[in-house]
Amino acid sequence: MITATRPVEPPDAGEFGLIARHFLRPGLAKPSQVALGIGDDCALLTPTPGWQLAISSDMLVQGRHFFPDVDPASLGHKALAVNLSDLAAMGARPLGFTLALALPEANDSWLKSFAAGLFALADVHACPLVGGDTTRGPLNICITVFGEVLPGMALRRGAGQVGDDVYVSGALGEARLALEIRQQTPWALAHTAEHAWPALIERMDRPAPRLALGMALSACAHAALDISDGLIGDLQHILRASGVGAEIEWASLPRTSAIATLPEPHQQTCLLHGGDDYELLFTAPAAARASVQTAALRSETAVHRIGRITAEAGSLHVLSPTGQTMPIAGQSFDHFSP
Amino acid sequence: MITATRPVEPPDAGEFGLIARHFLRPGLAKPSQVALGIGDDCALLTPTPGWQLAISSDMLVQGRHFFPDVDPASLGHKALAVNLSDLAAMGARPLGFTLALALPEANDSWLKSFAAGLFALADVHACPLVGGDTTRGPLNICITVFGEVLPGMALRRGAGQVGDDVYVSGALGEARLALEIRQQTPWALAHTAEHAWPALIERMDRPAPRLALGMALSACAHAALDISDGLIGDLQHILRASGVGAEIEWASLPRTSAIATLPEPHQQTCLLHGGDDYELLFTAPAAARASVQTAALRSETAVHRIGRITAEAGSLHVLSPTGQTMPIAGQSFDHFSP
Repeated sequence: MITATRPVEPPDAGEFGLIARHFLRPGLAKPSQVALGIGDDCALLTPTPGWQLAISSDMLVQGRHFFPDVDPASLGHKALAVNLSDLAAMGARPLGFTLALALPEANDSWLKSFAAGLFALADVHACPLVGGDTTRGPLNICITVFGEVLPGMALRRGAGQVGDDVYVSGALGEARLALEIRQQTPWALAHTAEHAWPALIERMDRPAPRLALGMALSACAHAALDISDGLIGDLQHILRASGVGAEIEWASLPRTSAIATLPEPHQQTCLLHGGDDYELLFTAPAAARASVQTAALRSETAVHRIGRITAEAGSLHVLSPTGQTMPIAGQSFDHFSP
Repeated sequence: MITATRPVEPPDAGEFGLIARHFLRPGLAKPSQVALGIGDDCALLTPTPGWQLAISSDMLVQGRHFFPDVDPASLGHKALAVNLSDLAAMGARPLGFTLALALPEANDSWLKSFAAGLFALADVHACPLVGGDTTRGPLNICITVFGEVLPGMALRRGAGQVGDDVYVSGALGEARLALEIRQQTPWALAHTAEHAWPALIERMDRPAPRLALGMALSACAHAALDISDGLIGDLQHILRASGVGAEIEWASLPRTSAIATLPEPHQQTCLLHGGDDYELLFTAPAAARASVQTAALRSETAVHRIGRITAEAGSLHVLSPTGQTMPIAGQSFDHFSP
């Protein structure tokens, strides 16, 4: 037989080189809870003794969650942000995340920019990439994020109680308005000054996960979730899980000037049915109002009391300034609605 | 203003109905470590005090990892099996998994079959689905699996030591032969009896993750991984991470009769470069031979000693029965190779 030795494959070839170039960060100090990061069959984490593990997974698909021409750095940011927002909604603190990525081609400049946006947000929240997968295929980004929360402290959807106040963080509707502007919807273009567009697009493309607020609220709030499908649609998840109803005061909904200057039907669309805001929607007992304000101050995140939980299971009323129930048009976003 | 109340959306609509119909399993007892399953912003797990968390994520794409006409039950099995195999390769025991699924359409009969295959394997290994995401898009399945391992007991790729024996579980190459048969490669059709095809296809479509073996080995083995890209390609991951070399005895490679009857060049293709076997490849000190056999017996999984770790970093020799280095042709599979 012929004698020959096959050389060991160089580590910069193909899939492994792609991971090494863009997703390994050898200079970075490993957080104490990451016992083993990228490069083995599994990552190993050392959870804090006595804490529970919070896990969420979101998949982003081109044409469904982002436009084909989206800035890859914004996409990297958003893919992680929507997952961190789920941790925020449970009151959990981040531990780390995995990234699975299907790419039509190994495009280095796209990946460099995507990784920059991803890691900039990861670093802000001390949430390291610990593992994942890359493959060739239609562009698809799947992130699974891990966090920690003390037992009994997680903010669950089913914990809303009759008499609770209903709150929302930040302001609502700008991401929806940005979407309409990007889609060149006539009413959005007509009622929004062009100089305001970049900030609105930024709001849609780079949501800020409300992690500090979520953690601060875990001691005083009851139910919580993050608004990804619109206030009305998402509030119904709390109502259904808690077996309660709600009244929302139209005038109390936090709106920026870009939203406040829209004609009322379009304000309704943005405020009540606007997805992608990633604000926290939560309930807390009236006795906890001071604690909620303290949590808002400590986390430097505005919160607004917008209504209350009622005993009438499944009923949801939006009240006008005169206390009358307003008609609500439109649907929240659903990936499988006809 | 007109008075109206918008009814709360029924829970069987769209995405939520799809999840409820196929992925909620209300009759199933919740394992003690799952504090909160599907339906909130995050799942909550209670890790066993003192254990480390092992995490792996794999993404399966149509045309890359499976054929468009694959049986959906097999696909459900395989999507979870390849992830469980990563836990097996670390010696970890399963805790649970998340599933993110992009589907071109909400096809109930496809989903029913997919879920049946998925849950049949999940139940065998007591590994519950704890959360996930569904969206519309080109078919893509991303599973992230969580397991537990005692600190210091994980089987890492970099733990191979000079003088270690090299082992592989089960038998090699049948998944590759099945792939060639499905692709109607002439040599595969010519040398394989037609009555053997279904069992070979089953081997490719429904790999058995070697979890019991991995857990049993964690006390006596050094390095381990699961063979997904082929023996030669995957062994090089251990060699590179451990800074060692290896000699493999061609005659010791475990082969079934379907492989043993192939002409030698095709045997080489299947045994050395066949992906998708999901057998464990591991090293253990010579002093642990009895313990390795005990682990094999306890886990009811065959293991075969196929070679040894050498000091010559990066060198990999396959030895003929007369002790000569054989020439090795072909590459292992890489998703981004040209």
